[in-house]
Amino acid sequence: MDIGKLKEDVFEANLELVRRGLVLYTWGNVSGIDRERGLVVIKPSGVSYDVMKSDDMVVLDLATGSVVEGSLRPSTDAPTHLVFYRAFANIGGVVHTHSSHAVAWAQAQRDIPIVGTTCADYFYQSIPCARALTREEIAENYEKATGDAIVEAFRERGIDPDSTPGALARNHGPFTWGKSPADAVYNAVVLEETSKTALMTAILNPALPVDEALVEKHYSRKHGPNAYYGQK
Amino acid sequence: MDIGKLKEDVFEANLELVRRGLVLYTWGNVSGIDRERGLVVIKPSGVSYDVMKSDDMVVLDLATGSVVEGSLRPSTDAPTHLVFYRAFANIGGVVHTHSSHAVAWAQAQRDIPIVGTTCADYFYQSIPCARALTREEIAENYEKATGDAIVEAFRERGIDPDSTPGALARNHGPFTWGKSPADAVYNAVVLEETSKTALMTAILNPALPVDEALVEKHYSRKHGPNAYYGQK
Amino acid sequence: MDIGKLKEDVFEANLELVRRGLVLYTWGNVSGIDRERGLVVIKPSGVSYDVMKSDDMVVLDLATGSVVEGSLRPSTDAPTHLVFYRAFANIGGVVHTHSSHAVAWAQAQRDIPIVGTTCADYFYQSIPCARALTREEIAENYEKATGDAIVEAFRERGIDPDSTPGALARNHGPFTWGKSPADAVYNAVVLEETSKTALMTAILNPALPVDEALVEKHYSRKHGPNAYYGQK
Amino acid sequence: MDIGKLKEDVFEANLELVRRGLVLYTWGNVSGIDRERGLVVIKPSGVSYDVMKSDDMVVLDLATGSVVEGSLRPSTDAPTHLVFYRAFANIGGVVHTHSSHAVAWAQAQRDIPIVGTTCADYFYQSIPCARALTREEIAENYEKATGDAIVEAFRERGIDPDSTPGALARNHGPFTWGKSPADAVYNAVVLEETSKTALMTAILNPALPVDEALVEKHYSRKHGPNAYYGQK
Repeated sequence: MDIGKLKEDVFEANLELVRRGLVLYTWGNVSGIDRERGLVVIKPSGVSYDVMKSDDMVVLDLATGSVVEGSLRPSTDAPTHLVFYRAFANIGGVVHTHSSHAVAWAQAQRDIPIVGTTCADYFYQSIPCARALTREEIAENYEKATGDAIVEAFRERGIDPDSTPGALARNHGPFTWGKSPADAVYNAVVLEETSKTALMTAILNPALPVDEALVEKHYSRKHGPNAYYGQK
Repeated sequence: MDIGKLKEDVFEANLELVRRGLVLYTWGNVSGIDRERGLVVIKPSGVSYDVMKSDDMVVLDLATGSVVEGSLRPSTDAPTHLVFYRAFANIGGVVHTHSSHAVAWAQAQRDIPIVGTTCADYFYQSIPCARALTREEIAENYEKATGDAIVEAFRERGIDPDSTPGALARNHGPFTWGKSPADAVYNAVVLEETSKTALMTAILNPALPVDEALVEKHYSRKHGPNAYYGQK
Repeated sequence: MDIGKLKEDVFEANLELVRRGLVLYTWGNVSGIDRERGLVVIKPSGVSYDVMKSDDMVVLDLATGSVVEGSLRPSTDAPTHLVFYRAFANIGGVVHTHSSHAVAWAQAQRDIPIVGTTCADYFYQSIPCARALTREEIAENYEKATGDAIVEAFRERGIDPDSTPGALARNHGPFTWGKSPADAVYNAVVLEETSKTALMTAILNPALPVDEALVEKHYSRKHGPNAYYGQK
Repeated sequence: MDIGKLKEDVFEANLELVRRGLVLYTWGNVSGIDRERGLVVIKPSGVSYDVMKSDDMVVLDLATGSVVEGSLRPSTDAPTHLVFYRAFANIGGVVHTHSSHAVAWAQAQRDIPIVGTTCADYFYQSIPCARALTREEIAENYEKATGDAIVEAFRERGIDPDSTPGALARNHGPFTWGKSPADAVYNAVVLEETSKTALMTAILNPALPVDEALVEKHYSRKHGPNAYYGQK
């Protein structure tokens, strides 16, 4: 893969976040990975979307996290992104936003329940809200610890990150991932919409009831060997 | 009727769904029927609205559901649409969306109550939320069963589909219909607005009180032999 | 006053309702009055805003309600507007909408409380929700009865319509008025915003507390002999 | 500093309030200060944003509050702005809006809690809702008293106005400040977003739990000697 193409993809995915209304100011970032070369491309820190160019994307070494190419500092959240690329072998892109409804669930310290087919089309299980970080984790390697707590939630609860491509950092906000940077952005949009309708559902029926067979059905309509949604 | 004209109407109605803010990505579909020729025209599955053309619409046989014309797969929800065309003799168009507020009511497993004249202008009775599907229905002919459960709700509760042109598939979302594809879209917009104001009403007054004579009055101002809204 | 000028004002005020996001489709209407000539100009019934022209406005006789000029039917709500022009001597324009948050309060059968200075700048007292209409009122002269019930609320509660320029028709929606058609639209926008923030306030603090001296102060900053807001 | 440049900055900051969706009509104002010359530049009262020009900005004397330059009346809220410039030595700009979600908290008479990192990035402590004004304060020097009550809240609770750049006037709405007019507007946008997500969080979890170490961490990522967000 040409790294210039990946930079362009990551740049475009960052702009798509803005177009979809998921970010205020610079509060979001997208990255992508070239697994063959072990390189991660990520948005620079705190640069306005209005002036950002494809060439401003920063290239990091997957193993060490050090900057391989680019004159700007990478997103402060880069260590969190790296944790996901190392732990989740199949993902090609990672997104972080502060989208309003997902943030509300993170601030409420609650998992986002899958209570309907809209979310079940893309998320197979409830979207976990990670545990609180310890004081030590917050003081040192905070961004890495943010990722570690999410990976821990997936491992301890036996959630497959490929079929449930997102999580909440407690009192912080959502991270999503996907096969590519664009796919991770798509999942970020779904996660925000899911957060919005689940909030309204909680107002109308706090029990948040759902039939798991229905969730199973919808997920497998769009994913896996028996998928039959869309064109071949 | 020229099938090309119906394709154009169905295509335009699909775009109107987007303009009205009722669909994210490809999460919605509109169909229309030519009852004389027994043909149903429907949106293809999972095709982006940006690139979709009138000629991409798929023509189905009403009786068998098989594709009569078109090179793309029909919407996965086509079997649900066909159930409505077979059960409800007067309808000319069907719409399915995942509009946020209607989805919230579907996920809460609650009927949408008619608590004001805005909805009573178009819906004569509360909009039913269909029963849960059985495991067998979910496993086999899921989309047909989705329509059957809605038709069952109308029959068992004695609701007239012509005066209450919409319903909720439980934990899924809204379906509406109308005299034409455009009319079905109009009803989808009304259903979403009704869902929104009813949710806020439930917050302010969970009793959701309404005078049925007022509902009767408003429905008959716009529909039936004594209607007097609009120009002749 | 030239009636053509009033038609233009009423037409423009109707378009402003759309620009302000207060109406879906044709669900709103504005009228204006020429008190010297005893004529009321109002939007035609059910005509799309896209094709509506200034000359489509309908001229009614204030005393009889009959059409004096115009080839289209007047808004079905015209009899409600006429009630207000006859009962409230100082008003020059009337607006009716189905704006979402105001409708929620009407459907909840609750007055909209003045709990902050934003609304107190324009409304001196809580915005009354009128009583339910009787079955007889609904069956006969429904639109006139809608206005009568609102006027009754102002008289029985001793509310001054000049300083509290709006009300809710129960289970229906808001009516506002003002010195001119444009002023009535302005008050419709304020009423909707007031409905929105009061709903959120009710979620955060159901007691809806407010200091009446503060309301008095803000209203008199913008209105009456001691007003000092704006340019002279 | 050239006062013309400050007028331009204040004018632009007022327009940015509109672009960010924080003001309806003329319900907001921004000011800026030239501390060397002891001059404050502020928006004129009640002038529409559509016709407002940079030269319409009014120049006030910081010490006396009297108009030094400009033919229009200053914003009625000017005395509140002056209180902040006198009490908070480091601020360069002040903003007042009636943004919907912040108004909801002010009307609920509640502090806006810092329950997540989005707000902690810019506000170090919960945003205080000032005490009610006395009848005497409302009757005389109302706008000055509005500022005094906010300054009192910061002093009594020991809140640093530089690290918590905003407050609520009870039953009124938000004021924010910052290093410049543009920075104060930025903080007004953050305050509104914080108000929105905190409201939704209160619905999902009324306990509004947060770890203070996390707030500390996020604030210091963006502010102070150890900040590492953004480019150098």
